[in-house]
Amino acid sequence: MSLIKEKVNQAIEILKEQQIDMWLTFVRETSGVRDPALDFLIGDNDLTWPSALILTRNGDKIAIVGNLEKEAVQRMDVFTEIIGYDTAVSGLLKETITRLNPNHIAVNTSRNNVHADGLTHAMYEFLKEYLAGTPYANRLVSAEPVINSLRGRKTKVELARIQKAVEITNQIFEKTFAFIKVGMTEIDIANYMHGLMQEYGVGFAWPKENNPAVNSGPNKIVGHNGPMDIKVERGHIIHFDFGVKYEGYCSDIQRVCYVLREGETEAPIEVQRGFITIRTAIEKSREAMKIGVAGKEVDIISRDIVTDSGYPEFNYALGHQLGRVAHDGGALLGPLWEKYGDSPNQKLEAGQIFTIEPGLAVTGYGYIGLEENVVMTNKGAEYLGDPQREIVLLKG
Amino acid sequence: MSLIKEKVNQAIEILKEQQIDMWLTFVRETSGVRDPALDFLIGDNDLTWPSALILTRNGDKIAIVGNLEKEAVQRMDVFTEIIGYDTAVSGLLKETITRLNPNHIAVNTSRNNVHADGLTHAMYEFLKEYLAGTPYANRLVSAEPVINSLRGRKTKVELARIQKAVEITNQIFEKTFAFIKVGMTEIDIANYMHGLMQEYGVGFAWPKENNPAVNSGPNKIVGHNGPMDIKVERGHIIHFDFGVKYEGYCSDIQRVCYVLREGETEAPIEVQRGFITIRTAIEKSREAMKIGVAGKEVDIISRDIVTDSGYPEFNYALGHQLGRVAHDGGALLGPLWEKYGDSPNQKLEAGQIFTIEPGLAVTGYGYIGLEENVVMTNKGAEYLGDPQREIVLLKG
Repeated sequence: MSLIKEKVNQAIEILKEQQIDMWLTFVRETSGVRDPALDFLIGDNDLTWPSALILTRNGDKIAIVGNLEKEAVQRMDVFTEIIGYDTAVSGLLKETITRLNPNHIAVNTSRNNVHADGLTHAMYEFLKEYLAGTPYANRLVSAEPVINSLRGRKTKVELARIQKAVEITNQIFEKTFAFIKVGMTEIDIANYMHGLMQEYGVGFAWPKENNPAVNSGPNKIVGHNGPMDIKVERGHIIHFDFGVKYEGYCSDIQRVCYVLREGETEAPIEVQRGFITIRTAIEKSREAMKIGVAGKEVDIISRDIVTDSGYPEFNYALGHQLGRVAHDGGALLGPLWEKYGDSPNQKLEAGQIFTIEPGLAVTGYGYIGLEENVVMTNKGAEYLGDPQREIVLLKG
Repeated sequence: MSLIKEKVNQAIEILKEQQIDMWLTFVRETSGVRDPALDFLIGDNDLTWPSALILTRNGDKIAIVGNLEKEAVQRMDVFTEIIGYDTAVSGLLKETITRLNPNHIAVNTSRNNVHADGLTHAMYEFLKEYLAGTPYANRLVSAEPVINSLRGRKTKVELARIQKAVEITNQIFEKTFAFIKVGMTEIDIANYMHGLMQEYGVGFAWPKENNPAVNSGPNKIVGHNGPMDIKVERGHIIHFDFGVKYEGYCSDIQRVCYVLREGETEAPIEVQRGFITIRTAIEKSREAMKIGVAGKEVDIISRDIVTDSGYPEFNYALGHQLGRVAHDGGALLGPLWEKYGDSPNQKLEAGQIFTIEPGLAVTGYGYIGLEENVVMTNKGAEYLGDPQREIVLLKG
């Protein structure tokens, strides 16, 4: 069974579980504005004219699309009823909804999860207009819970792809650590990693400009900004943030090295202390990740460990979900800041894949950030690939 | 000057011309849902946290972004005021708008142009909420006219890229016509074209599955569906719909061949008649394309020529704009059908690039569709590349 069929069937099970009668994805010209839910409904395909993709808890799989795209949708072999039109979608949509008579229609609008928020404001207004005068105009609800579960609960195929992405990422890191020499620039190192990505045939989990981030030494401003012409020197911490995409699924991993100074055989004590703080924070947060725990409870553990150790609080969430995009939505390991909405209150579910990524700066040396990828199982969170347990020492 | 700087300055000129005080693009996690306007504001980059990109008719270029992305936005060298935040965008956005005190705030919501419709319903609700209690909550207007002009009026750099895309498309067609032999499948031909695309280093103007469309003979259902295992036979019309992307800009061209039967030296009269009908329709529509003419007036010319010649009316718009996407928005050469909204009423402007693409089926032979790309100048519409003036005869 194709991944799309598998996810569509999973969506119907989720509708049953959440007692939602209908999930409606309403889109147009998806090459222009692409609702992220389409990845699970039509894959890489696009729909040109206003189109409605309807799943119901009774198992209906209905597509209303322009006649010129009927054949293409048929070939996907996902929808069991395909209704075509030439000039206007409104009548067909109203008729179909009336026939199915749902108590709730979940639509893709969400305050908390951008990946459940593909319905544009104008398309929402069209829907209200088309359904005006029927009871259904007032039965629109957010599909956020449906989409959160659908995106979060990875199938075996999805999990295997992410595992492979993580494996390749770690292999590229190993090769890169062996490659680095004093005097190379951050850009040199990033170019080398891009070359390895081509050899492995993988894509970018986020845009190339900032992927990998390579931050060498204490003078680099760390954030979502890419490699620069800063040169690797002895006594630098080199920090990486790197993710690849393998068959549509992402990894997102941070690693740190230390470049030994003449005569040194290990990293200075301040660097070691920073590393151990971050490593401990990750492990303690991971241990707390059990099904049903809220993300904010996991976030606070790392946040406290870092600040209790005397470092400033990191100004971002501890971890996000990982899937078809590097920053996937739904339950977030984060604090209750406005920008995160309700996501930190949401509970962990089996099958979700999270990053755990606290960080801190070591004055005079550079930035220490580690990021591990873990999968939620009934036993708790399990690492995908080996976590970084010791700082990598480079002889330069 | 970079293309983005050029387009941002053009946007400010358009705000002056249309007397709009402020254009606000409000986005988050753009790797998940990407507002098409971002192509002209930040290029391929992404913004993670809720971010506001503001241009004003006074020339302000303001970005409010997460602190971790401030550095990256600075490096783009497009925005002159960059405001960073850690936890909440709402206060800064309200303060900034209050300081600028605009009479109208154009936001990216549009009934007619999907490429001006990047604001999701939830983000629209956030905006209204953040501005509640100020006069600005009721000053939101659609940025459709601003974006239509910005996307439509191609700069020299944009035009040159599309010209190159058209040139490469035509070269690939020539090589493909020389390659085709009786017995090859549509898929064989598409694979050959994909190979040539790699040699030319160009991308797909729309997804690979349906690009090129290759339709051989009378039994293929023509539409947005891709090549199949149908074999080329003598007496087939072979129809192609194909577009490449060169440095982010698209071509979109249709061509037709006829495979001669034993003893034939030209196409049968019915095929020739169909071809001439379509060729005439294109030329007559092109001649009518003058600045200030509404798209529907151009559409009806081809539509009438095809139906007056006794063929069924084609069930799609005569032509769309071309740019960063194959189906770009704004003024459309189309009929006033619901699915096209108000676009067919919109007037042609200098610098816009359109397709012209009527079509008809010839019973027993196949589908004839030609598609030419033209640019609007003060003198009218000019072909980009040579139009197809005669049916290509293949000896098989």
